[in-house]
Amino acid sequence: MISKKISHNLANSSMIRAMFEEGEELRKIYGADKVYDFSLGNPDPEPPVEVKSALRELAGSGELKMHAYMNNAGYPEVRETIAKKINSETGLNLSFNNVVMTVGAGGALNVVLKTLLNPGEEVIVFAPFFVEYTSYIDNHGGKTVVINTDFKTFLPDPELLRTKITPNTKAIIINTPNNPTGVVYSRDTLNSIAKVLEDKSKEYGDTIYLISDEPYRKLAYDAEVPNILTIYKNAIMIDCFSKSLSLPGERMGYIATNPDAEDINTLMNGFIYCNRVLGFVNAPALFQKVIAKSINSTVDMNIYKERRDLLYNSLTEFGYECVKPDGAFYLFPKSLIPDDVEFKNRALKYNLIIVPGSGFGTPGYFRLAYCVSLETIKNSLPAFEALAKEFRK
Amino acid sequence: MISKKISHNLANSSMIRAMFEEGEELRKIYGADKVYDFSLGNPDPEPPVEVKSALRELAGSGELKMHAYMNNAGYPEVRETIAKKINSETGLNLSFNNVVMTVGAGGALNVVLKTLLNPGEEVIVFAPFFVEYTSYIDNHGGKTVVINTDFKTFLPDPELLRTKITPNTKAIIINTPNNPTGVVYSRDTLNSIAKVLEDKSKEYGDTIYLISDEPYRKLAYDAEVPNILTIYKNAIMIDCFSKSLSLPGERMGYIATNPDAEDINTLMNGFIYCNRVLGFVNAPALFQKVIAKSINSTVDMNIYKERRDLLYNSLTEFGYECVKPDGAFYLFPKSLIPDDVEFKNRALKYNLIIVPGSGFGTPGYFRLAYCVSLETIKNSLPAFEALAKEFRK
Repeated sequence: MISKKISHNLANSSMIRAMFEEGEELRKIYGADKVYDFSLGNPDPEPPVEVKSALRELAGSGELKMHAYMNNAGYPEVRETIAKKINSETGLNLSFNNVVMTVGAGGALNVVLKTLLNPGEEVIVFAPFFVEYTSYIDNHGGKTVVINTDFKTFLPDPELLRTKITPNTKAIIINTPNNPTGVVYSRDTLNSIAKVLEDKSKEYGDTIYLISDEPYRKLAYDAEVPNILTIYKNAIMIDCFSKSLSLPGERMGYIATNPDAEDINTLMNGFIYCNRVLGFVNAPALFQKVIAKSINSTVDMNIYKERRDLLYNSLTEFGYECVKPDGAFYLFPKSLIPDDVEFKNRALKYNLIIVPGSGFGTPGYFRLAYCVSLETIKNSLPAFEALAKEFRK
Repeated sequence: MISKKISHNLANSSMIRAMFEEGEELRKIYGADKVYDFSLGNPDPEPPVEVKSALRELAGSGELKMHAYMNNAGYPEVRETIAKKINSETGLNLSFNNVVMTVGAGGALNVVLKTLLNPGEEVIVFAPFFVEYTSYIDNHGGKTVVINTDFKTFLPDPELLRTKITPNTKAIIINTPNNPTGVVYSRDTLNSIAKVLEDKSKEYGDTIYLISDEPYRKLAYDAEVPNILTIYKNAIMIDCFSKSLSLPGERMGYIATNPDAEDINTLMNGFIYCNRVLGFVNAPALFQKVIAKSINSTVDMNIYKERRDLLYNSLTEFGYECVKPDGAFYLFPKSLIPDDVEFKNRALKYNLIIVPGSGFGTPGYFRLAYCVSLETIKNSLPAFEALAKEFRK
């Protein structure tokens, strides 16, 4: 008999699994090109040519020890490359000692939370939030405290944050550009959040960390994505190459800190130690070198912009209410009925696979991942229109 | 301020870190070729040619979506390849549903322990044991129960195991071929262990799982390494390609089960769920395909046999007491003084870097990882001899 908690979670997570199975069924019946699957954040564009050629070059290089263990933190030269890239963008002065390579952003979040949390300490997240945060926090004995954003803008209210912080608050997690809303926090918003954390850290005499989960930092349309390390000294930046280089399956991410953060050596040693004892050991060897060689490339944002514009403009024209995303590749429109799970089921009848907002802590909405082909979006539009008409009758 | 527990662990793990730093210092002073570093299980032989050509072929293939997300359990065709390989060796009837690809064996162990453990449940390990087991068990709220082996043979006593099992015992972890001793458990030993677990599972009315951690299963010298799935129905086999294909940095492993295990679907779904929520998400994409193409290859055991024979024969000749290893690439000789940490320090004066047995739950011994070049072993022998003479005076 497995763990009672996992057994319980499996029963409860069966809804999402059932959704994928329904999608598979639809594809079998109607053919894959007649099913419009907006469920998964799995980038459709191929990795940039720089990535592919770096991989070919390394694979053919005959370099020895290319797949061996290295320092648990990752190759020093790869960490140095990332530190320099951040320095060139921010004017900060990171060294390789401020960077730990990780098994994706998911791995990084687990490493950071294990390093920080004492049993029962609270971590604040803003709804709607990435569905795994609550599991990650729970993995390491923490307690998730959810604060709703303003559902007109999906922006957090720093003064509401102030009222929710207790002596038991260890950290907050922000995610900008945001999954599932595509919203980007402005410099002003970030400054206000930082001010609250500074005040409260001082009031309670212990650091409240700002964990900034940024898989989409390079995926912004015109909007500025300020570097969090320049805004709050005790910020922990988490980035990955899953979306910016279309490499989600390769699990490449990193943690970066400001050299002026409190107890910086203990903090970094904690990350390296937890990377090891959580069983990650180190980020995958070869792809560390691939991404170091591709550090200046990124996926072509025009690809995503065209898709966003087509989908956003069409949906709002059909009568869906939706905040226009400034980044990432998600739309988070309002469900046309309050019950978003029922709405997901109604959408299925039009071969539209969408994810209910409940999964992101925000019922009454649904998420569309538009990292699918332009063709799929075009072909899906009559279905979205028919679905809307059904509820406007 | 980071977690109190991690802060405490960092302070206590500083001995091993200090050891590596001392090694670095020695290399700076004497040159790398004058320092004999037997500390790390980082294979010296390159991966087999099949691995290198599979990697080149895939990197140059232009295959689309090669780095995308797949099922959290891994590519079905890669899992099927592994299932068939096990079937051909055992006559069992595994399908891809019995295999989950993981981020190395360390990732697999964490996934399995999270899936199984309720808070406070006990996991039995046999000393000497791989140093990370206690951390892995603790990560998921478990309690480690250590049982010593017979230090003349480093084999576990099944009847002693019987007396240590309580209603709170969830699993035992075995590791054969063993790190740090190189000992391989015979079929008889494994059958006796299985019998104890069957009896006790029946007595307490709940399954006691046998977790078999087998990174070295292909690294055996003549000794048979029986497949655990043929011996105990509720065994969970963990294997990886870090040592057999010299790929430790790429983090490729898997979990395999017997299709007849109890509640097999719940068990596998638990593994897949925990793989995701622990932040691994999936095993690295490209190398899943590399290892599937290289499934029949393995590192040349003659390389390791020559090293084992030279080191074992020389050390015993110099007066070290040591069980001759039947597998893996470790020797675990008796320290020449009871204080193994002091002995490690004395060895350092001869530029010999060894790991005290205390790190493996067995003070009074030391571990040598002989996955280093034959040249290093040859050059180190006068140092081992001089060290032995110092204590025979």
